[in-house]
Amino acid sequence: MVMVSGAQPQRDIDDLPKNEANYTALTPLWFLDRAALVHPNRASVIHGPVRFTWADTYRRCRQLASALSRRSIGPGCTVAVIAPNVPAMYEAHFGVPMAGAVVNAVNIRLNASTIAFLLDHCDAQVVMVDQEFFSLAEESLKIIAEKRKSSFKPPLLVVIGDPICHPESLQEALQKGAIEYEKFLETGDPKFEWKPPSDEWQSIALGYTSGTTKSPKGVVLHHRGAYLMALSVAMVWNMNEGAIYLWTLPMFHCNGWCYTWSLAALGGTNICLRQVSTRAIYSAIAEQGVTHFCAAPVVLNNLLNALPLPRPVHVMVAGAAPPPSLLADLSTRGFIVTHTYGLSETYGPSTICAWKPEWNNLPLDQRAGLHARQGVRYIALEGLEVVDPKTMAPVPADGTTLGEIVFRGNAVMKGYLKNPSANAEAFANGWYHSGDLGVKHPDGYIEVKDRSKDIIISGGENISSLEVEKTLYMHPAILETSVVARADERWGESPCAFVTLKESVDGSDEAAMAEDIMRFCRERMPGYWVPKSVVFGPLPKTATGKIRKEELRKQAKELGPVRESRL
Amino acid sequence: MVMVSGAQPQRDIDDLPKNEANYTALTPLWFLDRAALVHPNRASVIHGPVRFTWADTYRRCRQLASALSRRSIGPGCTVAVIAPNVPAMYEAHFGVPMAGAVVNAVNIRLNASTIAFLLDHCDAQVVMVDQEFFSLAEESLKIIAEKRKSSFKPPLLVVIGDPICHPESLQEALQKGAIEYEKFLETGDPKFEWKPPSDEWQSIALGYTSGTTKSPKGVVLHHRGAYLMALSVAMVWNMNEGAIYLWTLPMFHCNGWCYTWSLAALGGTNICLRQVSTRAIYSAIAEQGVTHFCAAPVVLNNLLNALPLPRPVHVMVAGAAPPPSLLADLSTRGFIVTHTYGLSETYGPSTICAWKPEWNNLPLDQRAGLHARQGVRYIALEGLEVVDPKTMAPVPADGTTLGEIVFRGNAVMKGYLKNPSANAEAFANGWYHSGDLGVKHPDGYIEVKDRSKDIIISGGENISSLEVEKTLYMHPAILETSVVARADERWGESPCAFVTLKESVDGSDEAAMAEDIMRFCRERMPGYWVPKSVVFGPLPKTATGKIRKEELRKQAKELGPVRESRL
Repeated sequence: MVMVSGAQPQRDIDDLPKNEANYTALTPLWFLDRAALVHPNRASVIHGPVRFTWADTYRRCRQLASALSRRSIGPGCTVAVIAPNVPAMYEAHFGVPMAGAVVNAVNIRLNASTIAFLLDHCDAQVVMVDQEFFSLAEESLKIIAEKRKSSFKPPLLVVIGDPICHPESLQEALQKGAIEYEKFLETGDPKFEWKPPSDEWQSIALGYTSGTTKSPKGVVLHHRGAYLMALSVAMVWNMNEGAIYLWTLPMFHCNGWCYTWSLAALGGTNICLRQVSTRAIYSAIAEQGVTHFCAAPVVLNNLLNALPLPRPVHVMVAGAAPPPSLLADLSTRGFIVTHTYGLSETYGPSTICAWKPEWNNLPLDQRAGLHARQGVRYIALEGLEVVDPKTMAPVPADGTTLGEIVFRGNAVMKGYLKNPSANAEAFANGWYHSGDLGVKHPDGYIEVKDRSKDIIISGGENISSLEVEKTLYMHPAILETSVVARADERWGESPCAFVTLKESVDGSDEAAMAEDIMRFCRERMPGYWVPKSVVFGPLPKTATGKIRKEELRKQAKELGPVRESRL
Repeated sequence: MVMVSGAQPQRDIDDLPKNEANYTALTPLWFLDRAALVHPNRASVIHGPVRFTWADTYRRCRQLASALSRRSIGPGCTVAVIAPNVPAMYEAHFGVPMAGAVVNAVNIRLNASTIAFLLDHCDAQVVMVDQEFFSLAEESLKIIAEKRKSSFKPPLLVVIGDPICHPESLQEALQKGAIEYEKFLETGDPKFEWKPPSDEWQSIALGYTSGTTKSPKGVVLHHRGAYLMALSVAMVWNMNEGAIYLWTLPMFHCNGWCYTWSLAALGGTNICLRQVSTRAIYSAIAEQGVTHFCAAPVVLNNLLNALPLPRPVHVMVAGAAPPPSLLADLSTRGFIVTHTYGLSETYGPSTICAWKPEWNNLPLDQRAGLHARQGVRYIALEGLEVVDPKTMAPVPADGTTLGEIVFRGNAVMKGYLKNPSANAEAFANGWYHSGDLGVKHPDGYIEVKDRSKDIIISGGENISSLEVEKTLYMHPAILETSVVARADERWGESPCAFVTLKESVDGSDEAAMAEDIMRFCRERMPGYWVPKSVVFGPLPKTATGKIRKEELRKQAKELGPVRESRL
């Protein structure tokens, strides 16, 4: 037989167009429709004494969509929600896009002027606000009104009552003309015939970054990405049908890292928490069968003070893995820890330190070292690299060469709202630029080393403040720490460590403790990495709980430069 | 606060275009790239003594893609593979689309003239054929050559050697000028830089239906659908990362119901089987840790003769659920049975009898009854209905009103290759028409009752042959059965049952057995449903193992009409 090369391919095989039967836009709204069909009687959302089934949730979301539509809220409109993890916040993630509009979940820890900036920037036509935060919303709107003057069109204010709260703030809101959420739902049709977006690229959600220096940027996500990430976040975490998820992570953080939508895909159960406490977490695990939850490292620390778990529970931490001792204690108590990393711009975490069974037998320190890496791309993220930001060439996979971490694919945001210059910068050279610095290990796993701006340059050498922090966290007396550059007469800059101790110490003991910490560091890192200054006290944080390094830099500046005599 | 309705929505929120950083075509090829990154050393494909890792599989698939590209095989080209479940068949599912071409997995049970029809119809430029089937391929190509005469361009013939087979047939193929698969791979670049398709609607696979009456139709699937279904089939079956899947289902059946691609998404392990036997299944479970496999009911029957399982194993059956006694025996032995249903046109199964925990405590018969239903749509299928095919109105969800089962969404094929009239018929009114008849139960689960053409019309009443068969299967002596219409002097048609007994009986006993079966039926169904004729013997089957009802109808015709005196 002889191959006839260069044969003209026939194109019939591709000449089959899309039609109504074989194509529909991807949207996570399909998941809710399916959950209500398959598991109508299963608990969808539980919040204290409130318990909804998937049939309830579907009905309520359709009512919300219908009520919004009847107020002319549709494609191109934004509905802001200022609320903790209550059922209405969950419902907004489906009801708002069912009306074709975009849901903007607002961080409740922001102050009125920042919230005013957001609501004004995205021109929110509706503001849904939890009763506890009504006066915050009111104040924010007042700020916009003053700024906009006569051009200000007040949004529709819907107040969400919570039976857990004292009725007073609800009454006050109603007296001021806000519509109660349940009443608002009643104006909607429970059989509302929602449609998928005509284009899956249509926007579904908007979330603002908590910029410490500049104005917050509005990250816009689309239906396609929300669908794909909702499946992806479930699959990489081995969440199965019927998973029971505890909401310690605020839904206003990147839409709860897409777990809002995942839970519908899984026909699982959402356990809401108005306020996160160790006791609430343990009782949800013991009494409600929680299988999965996400937690910040500080929450994990507190979990150790409680009893061992009745059965293994999955916990996801993002950005920074727990230090070795915490990791060991957690797993002894039955927590299966998964470490992930991502940004608002990537729908929340989009890399995972995918764990390999063969690592289980390594010594704890090695395990913790592997665990600390940010890992590999999620299924729905197609490109992840560490590159030289100038040439875009990937760094060698040697675990030491620093480069910028860049993302590419369906898990990358649509862009920033009304911010062409930020978009141009973020998407330069066909990649999303995270601004985070990292390395690639020989096995292809990436590890974040620092934010570009957090690098300390001492005597012309780069010092990763994160690396220094990592070592500091191994010191038995340290609860929390952050390292920034401090001016240094001789070296230009040197590391300055701000430290919160587990148990505070007094004046003279502080000096001894500082000495002890520096000695601890000298034994474990190059000399020029060792902090030349150690400052004790609580650390300033942003509304989302991130340590405000900008503030610490200011404080370091106020200390003045390090002088040779200090050594 | 006053709502200002009719406010002009701002469109900025949608005005954020696709770019290289935030959009890429969906294709299951990404899964292989990721599996090789995350689990390079984990077993990807095991076939007897042959064992590949994900790094191997990725390298080999890239070589295959490169070797094809170097032979000018790319977009618009078709590569046919005639092989059982061997590693090369698996690799073709990635290597061929990596070159941009379409993989056509051919049923090895077809005869030469049918295969000739397929290869000619899709104009296969390359034929990869397992050594055992080389002469079959050769014969098929001879038929095409005779038909096409001088216009025939012989495809490139690549023969797949299998160390399990006797080397003779391989030698023969090589002598006749075929290239050995491993040699062909060597002509390819292991670092081949594959690209996702420029459009995710591009075709990825072609599979022919096993039409019993008309010419086979070529079902074309695309990258987008393959990606979505690969995730969906894993999620609905609770397959987790690292699943170990046993290939009893041929990969040439709808690309192994997309599990070919799923296993890469899961970084799992494919256990190949050249030939399915009970012993092979048990040893794969015991020795290789199989977690999931798909099986035809006849395979399940045989599993009962073996020992209990070392641990629970998931088994998926499609189309017809096991009868109650088989179901009970299977679960006693540790098999977790999942019942699904679909067609080649829906990427294989796309509905699932999603099981509810609350059903576990029901009596066996009720459980089996619930199990027998084809259920609800997969996550990646967005529409499933039972409709009046004339008006397209959904039938009432009463469990009794018969309608046609129709599908809609991303899990529906792109269309039939070069068959506009079949496409027009299949996609009429914006739905894919399955031609299967069914009902919708009050809980929304659908149940297949029959193929349209398999309905028996007796005295003007419709009888579902499937319903009669279902009852017959409950008879303890019956192994297999099929019911068709037989002409009837008085009633027009009446049911005629063809039956294979578990233990065959002789002449006079046959009459007694037939009487017993009819009595059994009379106690369980309306009188006019009871088969008036019972014929014993083996059942004729298609190459894919389906019972050939057309053939039985012929036999029923040869029996002549049922006369009154027979009663």
